[in-house]
Amino acid sequence: MSAELARPDGEAGALFPGGVRALNVGVAEFSVAPRAHGAGVVALDWRPPAGGDRELGLVLARLEDDLDDPVGARVAAANRLAVERLLAARPLLVDVQPAALVVPGLGARTLLHAGPPIEWSRMCGPMRGAVIGAVLYEGWAATAEAAERLARDGSIGFTPCHHHGAVGPMAGILSPSMPVAIVDNAAAGNRAFATLNEGLGKVLRFGAYGADVLDRLRWMAGTLAPALARALAARGPVDLRSLTAQALLMGDECHNRNVAATSLFARLLAPALVRTSPPDTAAAVLDFLGANDHFYLNLSMAACKSALDAAHGIAGATVVTAMARNGVEFGIRVSGAGERWFTAPALVPDGLYFPGHGPAEANPDLGDSAITETMGLGGFAMAAAPAIVRFVGGSPEDGLAHTREMATITLARNAGYGIPALGFAGTPTGIDCRRVVDSGVVPVINTGIAHRDAGVGQIGAGIARAPLPCFAAALAELGRRLGLEKR
Amino acid sequence: MSAELARPDGEAGALFPGGVRALNVGVAEFSVAPRAHGAGVVALDWRPPAGGDRELGLVLARLEDDLDDPVGARVAAANRLAVERLLAARPLLVDVQPAALVVPGLGARTLLHAGPPIEWSRMCGPMRGAVIGAVLYEGWAATAEAAERLARDGSIGFTPCHHHGAVGPMAGILSPSMPVAIVDNAAAGNRAFATLNEGLGKVLRFGAYGADVLDRLRWMAGTLAPALARALAARGPVDLRSLTAQALLMGDECHNRNVAATSLFARLLAPALVRTSPPDTAAAVLDFLGANDHFYLNLSMAACKSALDAAHGIAGATVVTAMARNGVEFGIRVSGAGERWFTAPALVPDGLYFPGHGPAEANPDLGDSAITETMGLGGFAMAAAPAIVRFVGGSPEDGLAHTREMATITLARNAGYGIPALGFAGTPTGIDCRRVVDSGVVPVINTGIAHRDAGVGQIGAGIARAPLPCFAAALAELGRRLGLEKR
Repeated sequence: MSAELARPDGEAGALFPGGVRALNVGVAEFSVAPRAHGAGVVALDWRPPAGGDRELGLVLARLEDDLDDPVGARVAAANRLAVERLLAARPLLVDVQPAALVVPGLGARTLLHAGPPIEWSRMCGPMRGAVIGAVLYEGWAATAEAAERLARDGSIGFTPCHHHGAVGPMAGILSPSMPVAIVDNAAAGNRAFATLNEGLGKVLRFGAYGADVLDRLRWMAGTLAPALARALAARGPVDLRSLTAQALLMGDECHNRNVAATSLFARLLAPALVRTSPPDTAAAVLDFLGANDHFYLNLSMAACKSALDAAHGIAGATVVTAMARNGVEFGIRVSGAGERWFTAPALVPDGLYFPGHGPAEANPDLGDSAITETMGLGGFAMAAAPAIVRFVGGSPEDGLAHTREMATITLARNAGYGIPALGFAGTPTGIDCRRVVDSGVVPVINTGIAHRDAGVGQIGAGIARAPLPCFAAALAELGRRLGLEKR
Repeated sequence: MSAELARPDGEAGALFPGGVRALNVGVAEFSVAPRAHGAGVVALDWRPPAGGDRELGLVLARLEDDLDDPVGARVAAANRLAVERLLAARPLLVDVQPAALVVPGLGARTLLHAGPPIEWSRMCGPMRGAVIGAVLYEGWAATAEAAERLARDGSIGFTPCHHHGAVGPMAGILSPSMPVAIVDNAAAGNRAFATLNEGLGKVLRFGAYGADVLDRLRWMAGTLAPALARALAARGPVDLRSLTAQALLMGDECHNRNVAATSLFARLLAPALVRTSPPDTAAAVLDFLGANDHFYLNLSMAACKSALDAAHGIAGATVVTAMARNGVEFGIRVSGAGERWFTAPALVPDGLYFPGHGPAEANPDLGDSAITETMGLGGFAMAAAPAIVRFVGGSPEDGLAHTREMATITLARNAGYGIPALGFAGTPTGIDCRRVVDSGVVPVINTGIAHRDAGVGQIGAGIARAPLPCFAAALAELGRRLGLEKR
């Protein structure tokens, strides 16, 4: 039950000279009358749990940690295990290979996409553009029109990245011959994948599919990926946990700001790149890493995915293991609630727009990149990244407030990821569905804003919120699975 | 005049029921008696200006900005110009060349050293060790004993780096065949130099002179320096102002913490390095840059030196243009007080020691690196670098406090160097001798601590303070130069 005691906002006044005081619980309007008569009213900011849904409230009560109740004890133990796995994760970037060779279950004419499942007819503009681009890139069609026809007539299979251990920012379109970063979680033995980041401007993930976009993708597959693979083979895996930890001390939150992590990564890999590639190739790769401050984003996403997958599938655990958006729906998965997505309409982020753009052009929240928030980075680590808070239209104080608020809906602090501005307190990690539903406080996501039309690209950056109904539905499912029938 | 109103620390009590209150100015003991009788005493923390030196106090009063007084008006205008030059500085790393070819006035058997002038007989352990190492490196002697003999018998000339437009950290020993980074201040057209940073451990600047130290110096001169020079020639100058500004957003204060700036620099230069050096050389240079988080320190120092030199020599200006330590004395130079050094005994920094070491082994404050504080970085920018505050034994709050305190003795905020934790307020820049003497608040310096014996190396890190008498002496000289005779 959430109840925060507000500071007294009235003092005993004229009509009640002895100092009549009232305690007003909940609806603020009830305090107007006594105040008008001069009484002091202490307001208790109370909201009914589970948004007033009585059945869900009962489920919520039964799911609370309680060692004397078999259900409560089971939930507590399951969450302990889930959090343990999150905190123990040790993501290592081990290789870069074509998706077709390494991503399990990737069919011949299949495209992976961001967010929960979605078919062509419902896809948003940027995702459709990226699909067209990927079809052209794969050579399945020669023109945009032909590509669109294939997508529409069912010749192309669509399946979420998340169903294949993968993640992709924005449209998140991943086709078989695109290279993926391979991240092994050395603690749990599982593996995750992400596309390589293309940079800013006209890029596939925002739905652009011009010749320059496809040329860059070909260069990334033909030159960048093999060079990175050779360098990684020569120097050994790159410890992404260590890079992320350092970057959090350097103003990154590893979702929307990745300049420190990208710089550290480039500096770390440069000698091996030079030793294993022809000079022209090494120089071109270093140029690319030098010009793309977001290169680390996709590595950060794969690292988070590898940690969260290890915490998924624990019966009774109320920990959120994925948050992802397909540009139409926002979906979450919860450790103890199986493979199901709990979805609600995606919201338009609230942020700052580049000159000449505005909210009317914004696509609703899009991309798998909220996997970083699911792991306690991004919006959850905003206190570490005052520069990005300004970029999305806030002040450093807003960043501190976001991180502190997210600590109220998470189960742990990740001591490996210290935030300097909070006295090196760890990032708030392990979103607890119960706390979200109980308090109504929803995860904050630090995100780019895509133009709703294909290929225009990024038009701003801001803060998106995860929709509450996702968490309520997940909690109801958790209740069902634990034998607490709702209705 | 400094006067800070303390919060009331007493309430009206028993003996004076009507609430007798007193104002106590200065010496705290005077408030004991009235308080004992229950009176409320408001304490005003007042100290006489200029430490109670009446003559200096009069000089100080005449030097205050005052447009109706020819002296006050001249000082105000001179400081305006000095600060303008500091803020306008645009330091560019243009080249790396042997000192003998580029540093003006460097004699054949001359060694440059850190801090104000000092002769062999008074040099501290680490500086003597570095002198021996440099003599061996130059081939002027074959053994340490022979090198020491040359230094003692006057065969080697010693002159401060600062007298040649150069700066060097710790011992700051610079010999003719060592390479220097060349930094041009594009705004004022002047030039500054610094040695290249060797890394940590057994290094010349801490007084080590073993074969490994000399081998590294030879590699730096024969391989590193030419490779950097080729890369700079190919890509063009590196804008150090921009790198420093970015690094301040990334947790560096560009004196004791340089990991962000070094990473940005390595990432920036890597493509050109690869394009202009054989792969083995490029890889070795990138290895070196990758393993040395302090590489940027010396570039930061040269950048600061180039800005401060441009602000030096303005008649009437009370702005400090150099702070430097030779391990025995702390010296400052002031813009309007000529080439003279104003010195006082160097103090031992207050900080944390590496395991097995303690203050008894510490050398007094050493090196030209306080040039960074003189330009508003290092200790003045501690609020930007919470991680280094912890390293030197403080909390992030201490960092904020240091920067705020330094703002009370500086004339400007450098808007180009924003500090995220202070709402992007600029670094406090342009130390004003008057404010230091008036308030007794002395510059804070964020520094490494050297073992007092040659070659042991760094044994800790901490906070050093500039000695107040340096500033008092400089102020008296400023007064003399402005016709305000003292005595």
